[in-house]
Amino acid sequence: MADSIPVPEVEVADVWRLLDERVKPLEPERVPLDKALGRILREDIRATADQPPFDRSAMDGYAFVPSSAPGNFHLYRIIGSIKAGEVAERAPGPGEALRVFTGAELPAPGLAVLMQEEARIEGDHLCVEREVSSGENVRRCGSDARRGDILLPKERRLGAVSLAVLASDGQVKPLVAAAPRVAHATTGDEIVPPESTPGAGQIRNSNQILIRSLLQSVIPSRNIHQEHWGDDPVAAAARLAAEPFANVDLILISGGASVGDHDYTARVLEEAGFELPVRKINSRPGRPLIVGFRGRQIVFGLPGNPVSHYVCFHLMVNYAVARLRGVPMPEWHPLPLAGPLPNCFNRRPTYWPAAMETDRVRNTRVVRPLAWNNSGHLAALLHAQVLFCVPPETKELPAGSPVNSFPVYFFG
Amino acid sequence: MADSIPVPEVEVADVWRLLDERVKPLEPERVPLDKALGRILREDIRATADQPPFDRSAMDGYAFVPSSAPGNFHLYRIIGSIKAGEVAERAPGPGEALRVFTGAELPAPGLAVLMQEEARIEGDHLCVEREVSSGENVRRCGSDARRGDILLPKERRLGAVSLAVLASDGQVKPLVAAAPRVAHATTGDEIVPPESTPGAGQIRNSNQILIRSLLQSVIPSRNIHQEHWGDDPVAAAARLAAEPFANVDLILISGGASVGDHDYTARVLEEAGFELPVRKINSRPGRPLIVGFRGRQIVFGLPGNPVSHYVCFHLMVNYAVARLRGVPMPEWHPLPLAGPLPNCFNRRPTYWPAAMETDRVRNTRVVRPLAWNNSGHLAALLHAQVLFCVPPETKELPAGSPVNSFPVYFFG
Repeated sequence: MADSIPVPEVEVADVWRLLDERVKPLEPERVPLDKALGRILREDIRATADQPPFDRSAMDGYAFVPSSAPGNFHLYRIIGSIKAGEVAERAPGPGEALRVFTGAELPAPGLAVLMQEEARIEGDHLCVEREVSSGENVRRCGSDARRGDILLPKERRLGAVSLAVLASDGQVKPLVAAAPRVAHATTGDEIVPPESTPGAGQIRNSNQILIRSLLQSVIPSRNIHQEHWGDDPVAAAARLAAEPFANVDLILISGGASVGDHDYTARVLEEAGFELPVRKINSRPGRPLIVGFRGRQIVFGLPGNPVSHYVCFHLMVNYAVARLRGVPMPEWHPLPLAGPLPNCFNRRPTYWPAAMETDRVRNTRVVRPLAWNNSGHLAALLHAQVLFCVPPETKELPAGSPVNSFPVYFFG
Repeated sequence: MADSIPVPEVEVADVWRLLDERVKPLEPERVPLDKALGRILREDIRATADQPPFDRSAMDGYAFVPSSAPGNFHLYRIIGSIKAGEVAERAPGPGEALRVFTGAELPAPGLAVLMQEEARIEGDHLCVEREVSSGENVRRCGSDARRGDILLPKERRLGAVSLAVLASDGQVKPLVAAAPRVAHATTGDEIVPPESTPGAGQIRNSNQILIRSLLQSVIPSRNIHQEHWGDDPVAAAARLAAEPFANVDLILISGGASVGDHDYTARVLEEAGFELPVRKINSRPGRPLIVGFRGRQIVFGLPGNPVSHYVCFHLMVNYAVARLRGVPMPEWHPLPLAGPLPNCFNRRPTYWPAAMETDRVRNTRVVRPLAWNNSGHLAALLHAQVLFCVPPETKELPAGSPVNSFPVYFFG
């Protein structure tokens, strides 16, 4: 019987090393700003011009060369008015003022702007009743950035402010990390669509929406293809040979990953030319995990239950996606346990879901293990913010123990 | 002149109270699961059936009634095989075993499952060489949830795990908070599209992508309409009377909000029937803010510079959006300053951008003020994670001062 052949187990860290070796980053691409939210910059963005590009008024008010005459009362004749986007006919000379609006280009260096709330107007004259310094209420040319300054460094995740900075400098097609194309198949004759009423022995497909939602945090949804396969290996092989599976960067197959008689994933993948260096990993949950390669394609066979899916996604699949994108993975951090973890014995390393809390007394960040009994208990993950590793053969962990914790980037 | 009419100032907290009074939540709506990521539940989700709905095997292995005969060696005759989705012809009797695969429905209570790695098979018999307890490797019916249990509480933000929980219970159209429809106009003849080369006195439009990106954190992008208006109030009034401005839930107008001669927003809005109880707020930045209402429509006139935009969006616009969605706003928290804030004097309350840091020595969360000099300095916000309030007339804040801090939900 197939299940009598021993399959060597691989440590989680060995899988990471394997992915480091075998997965090469995809070529970065240029995208328009309205498609760039959340993407990772793959170039330094340098200012193409001084910012602001000219001295600008920071206020609605009056611009003039402050008088050097003694006393705190001066009159300036108003010679004209400019708003943002207009160019003054001439700069105000001594004793002259220009009505200006916020953002207007000041026509000469050395001007000051008196805000209109402080201005007293008499006829065509501005009365200034206090000392005013050159540069007051002026946003100086180049004061935010000089031409050639780095505005945004490579590897920055583009958020709202980054995109506005790019727009203000006219850089409308930034070079960003590639978005891998992913094809995902859920498998199993017993799996029915969520809107169906399951018959005897059947269960609804929850892995499809789980994987889609997890992937959407790092990949645009148009790059994600999903379908369902039954238990027929011939049909599965045909789908694997067809688009989009034949050419995507990453293939995910849910279920069918263990060595049971009905678990065909490994067989079908090998027949399709995939090399499968990993078929089992030394972890709980997630033990029967397949990792394979064909040319530049990567495949994961994920254990069918949703909790294993979730853990394997964060530990392994997302690692491969990060490699493909060419971006760093989140890091592990040692953090203290908020309370004891009793009865956690297992002969494998266990990746335990936990919430982050603040210890109100010491204002410290601590890890609160979630109640979690078996690998099918999906709802236990609703409040997970990290996974932490319980070393093998550990009977219990007392409160305050430092545990190695890994952020779960996706809200429950 | 228009700018000689004093406009009363309103405190930020007064704007919140006004929005509390005037903005009624929109009707929640039902959406399919693949459109529900990130939406807020507006109903408790209760289990419609026990989960799991039957006793299931947690492993690939063999199911049997553990023998009560003395000794640790027992033989069981294998009578058949079931995988997930199949129904056994009959339950194994005393001395009998059933080959089972992960997820298979166990045909009787009181069974145990021995995992296949531990099973020794001789002919058609299973040899069990250790003590086995009833219930071992069995996921019991109802062990994750009982019918009627609350699976997801009202107000939960739907993430990957929540959606998988909904799918597994067949609840494929959850009731979620409404997504307001927003129409946004940038204004000003001096504003050119980001891809253009600005002429003398012109600047590129960065507020459009800024507002779009900020809104996308809380509203699907299909609900966001954007366009640009020049300085002609007649054309602006025509657009305001047309779709989608005539009927959206929220109108945003960038620029034109101060009382300068060329700032037409208030005039155009009043002529279009909007009541404008707020035209100036006592804050830095963001002072010339317009807040208005027409029937159930809300309008904000935002000061034109991007930093004021950003601050007003977080303090005010997002507050209104939260009210429309019927979800709570993020809360203010007192947190210690990581370092001193010198020279912060202003006669208005200042909302200062800051990053969150961990004090490594005490493992505490602290607020690090960002270098920030003027309201046009957009790049200063790239690392902002909170805004904190510097009270008016404060000359400096020493390190460790508690400051009231408000999370900025949108990465830079």
